[in-house]
Amino acid sequence: MNILYKKNILFLIATLCCLTSVAQQALFGGNEIVSPEVNSDGFVTFRLFAPNAKQVQVTGDFLPNIKVQTPFGEVEQPQTIDMVQANGVWSYTTPTSLSPELYSYKFKVDGLDYLDPSNVYMCRDIASYTNIFIVSKEKGDKGDLYSVNDVPHGNVSKVWYDSPTLKMNRRMTVYTPPGYEKGDKYPALYLLHGAGGDEDAWVSLGRASQVLDNLIAAGKIEPMIVVMTNGNPNCEAAPGEWSKGMYKPSFMGHMNPAPVASMEESFMDVVNFVDNNYNVYTDKQHRAICGLSMGGGHSFSISKLYPELFDYVGLFSAAVSLKNNFRLEETSNPQNEADPIVAEQLKVMFENNPKLYWIAIGNTDFLYQANETYRNYLDSKGYKYEYVETDGGHIWRNWRIYLTTFAQRLFK
Amino acid sequence: MNILYKKNILFLIATLCCLTSVAQQALFGGNEIVSPEVNSDGFVTFRLFAPNAKQVQVTGDFLPNIKVQTPFGEVEQPQTIDMVQANGVWSYTTPTSLSPELYSYKFKVDGLDYLDPSNVYMCRDIASYTNIFIVSKEKGDKGDLYSVNDVPHGNVSKVWYDSPTLKMNRRMTVYTPPGYEKGDKYPALYLLHGAGGDEDAWVSLGRASQVLDNLIAAGKIEPMIVVMTNGNPNCEAAPGEWSKGMYKPSFMGHMNPAPVASMEESFMDVVNFVDNNYNVYTDKQHRAICGLSMGGGHSFSISKLYPELFDYVGLFSAAVSLKNNFRLEETSNPQNEADPIVAEQLKVMFENNPKLYWIAIGNTDFLYQANETYRNYLDSKGYKYEYVETDGGHIWRNWRIYLTTFAQRLFK
Repeated sequence: MNILYKKNILFLIATLCCLTSVAQQALFGGNEIVSPEVNSDGFVTFRLFAPNAKQVQVTGDFLPNIKVQTPFGEVEQPQTIDMVQANGVWSYTTPTSLSPELYSYKFKVDGLDYLDPSNVYMCRDIASYTNIFIVSKEKGDKGDLYSVNDVPHGNVSKVWYDSPTLKMNRRMTVYTPPGYEKGDKYPALYLLHGAGGDEDAWVSLGRASQVLDNLIAAGKIEPMIVVMTNGNPNCEAAPGEWSKGMYKPSFMGHMNPAPVASMEESFMDVVNFVDNNYNVYTDKQHRAICGLSMGGGHSFSISKLYPELFDYVGLFSAAVSLKNNFRLEETSNPQNEADPIVAEQLKVMFENNPKLYWIAIGNTDFLYQANETYRNYLDSKGYKYEYVETDGGHIWRNWRIYLTTFAQRLFK
Repeated sequence: MNILYKKNILFLIATLCCLTSVAQQALFGGNEIVSPEVNSDGFVTFRLFAPNAKQVQVTGDFLPNIKVQTPFGEVEQPQTIDMVQANGVWSYTTPTSLSPELYSYKFKVDGLDYLDPSNVYMCRDIASYTNIFIVSKEKGDKGDLYSVNDVPHGNVSKVWYDSPTLKMNRRMTVYTPPGYEKGDKYPALYLLHGAGGDEDAWVSLGRASQVLDNLIAAGKIEPMIVVMTNGNPNCEAAPGEWSKGMYKPSFMGHMNPAPVASMEESFMDVVNFVDNNYNVYTDKQHRAICGLSMGGGHSFSISKLYPELFDYVGLFSAAVSLKNNFRLEETSNPQNEADPIVAEQLKVMFENNPKLYWIAIGNTDFLYQANETYRNYLDSKGYKYEYVETDGGHIWRNWRIYLTTFAQRLFK
């Protein structure tokens, strides 16, 4: 071990303080590749040191979509681009400047999906990881909005609460705005994830705490508490965070056993916990609910099940249905009639006159027709809502925009 | 898009709700490999589908260490084992049953480090990720202790606090015990990470919240608040969580600019924030501090700098020094004299008679001699401390054990 005392690595070793032996390999491996290199002009270079690889490719949502044949038919997915090798380092620079955005990507090395070892920033989407990076060109653009900036930060907590309805202790994520500890009272936004997601989804791929911090700092939204629940009523928490062990996440959540009640039926357990444990206003004017996809369906159902709870309802690419149970084939039928119970619940809710009933969806979303059917129904009844249609499909890029837009309409 | 409405994938598509297009590939790729397969008897099988690879290997801390030549001389690291291929699936089963523990591993595919795509559970250690898995054979063993069990859970919060000394808003992780919201008062443990780590380290690789939950549920420790600070005084927060952007973590922390004060000098900012914002006892009998490596050094320095603050001090593989500034070459000299100021601080602290001054280190730790020098000094002065020596080196496996042991000695 004498070598350890050699002068030129003394400081290194002296501070080598939380390395496992596995991690030591990375240290001594001397990997100094920079990837992705995000230039301020929006050009991005990806690099991977892989001297023995025959083919290295990059794919990600910064690339245009192409149609690909799968066992389920044709689907759209991002292009896969060949990278070029020099001195063992494979690289690719975008031919054009990327717009401000948070992007996901991964490599393929000789056909195998491969995470960028030079980039520690990644997000899990159900059972898949991708690396992420942010392009920002000026203050206030989308990239800036999704970045951690030098502004006051809210706290993000993983909070366990009791759900008597589900007979479970369950985990939620709670964002409290900067200065919350000073004791002021705040309104509350309930922000719901989609199928396959969990209480971590909105703060990882959704960048909810960055969006909130930055919009509050810019004076564009009211400071608020944001409650991000777990929408899988047979799960206590995200995968690995409850007693079912380190199971592989699926987009159906954990299937076993069946829940004793639905997400909607158990929702007052959440609201009661928040009302009792946070410094929040407990009236309709100070409560909002929104969610994406399945969570949009939940927001739709919860808002009509508890018509006096929310003055603000946001349906983002929502799995909406005029039937009691959501089935895509039903909702895509424009001639569809509402179930009497659904019709009555909607009637009561709209009679309660919510300040904002907000529907947003991308024009290529597979739930587009379901939403169109629903909007036609609302029109036929004269129920007041606002509608925003964006480009694109069923993707986080849209949901981050919808959160940003919706949040600015709340509690004013 | 007609294909989307085919009956047999309807439910799938209808609930396909938070997939980015990148993630869709994983879904349609049909990867159903199970890896790692952890059997209850402690045998573990690793699998990777890589039909075109020439060589697939696995390495991790479940394997015995071997000596390896590096540019810095001989170091110990885990063996790397060749996996065997059949039908495109490479696999390896441990020849013996593994002891209960949390293990780290990764694959090497044709020489490239490769994370297991079938295992979403991973930990970052500075700039490297490894997959993790847990082996547990019976209730109460180490694997069980590091698992999320069906017991009441404490909350884990990322909390921003003001540090006037460092002229920064800074982030810490706070564990509050189950039932904290009921309003009881608790003692506080300050739990510090090592170099290269941050306020996330103890809750990821350290499994601190699981250890606390399980020990509290078993009645083995007093319920307590655990405060996990960021020990890099030039950083506000973990990489990616403050305004320096998505930089690559290094084991020196973020180097630029230099801090305006040291971790030790700024520590009262943390204590004051906790005392003012949490329901904690604020006397010496109800405060403990401990840390690993650099954080052990911080615990050593902070406890002597504020001799009336802590009745419990734990030094885990600590970077201790009798000089004012830690330098490995100095501390490894058994003839070393204490700096007068250090000698005086230690004298005052031990005169204050802490209930427990606890030193633990592994017998192959590179800081072993530094700790021996320190213990000799304490012995020469007749200062009372307890000493625990374990097998192994400067690794999380030891630090989890030290936390488990130390926590059971606190506040009793």
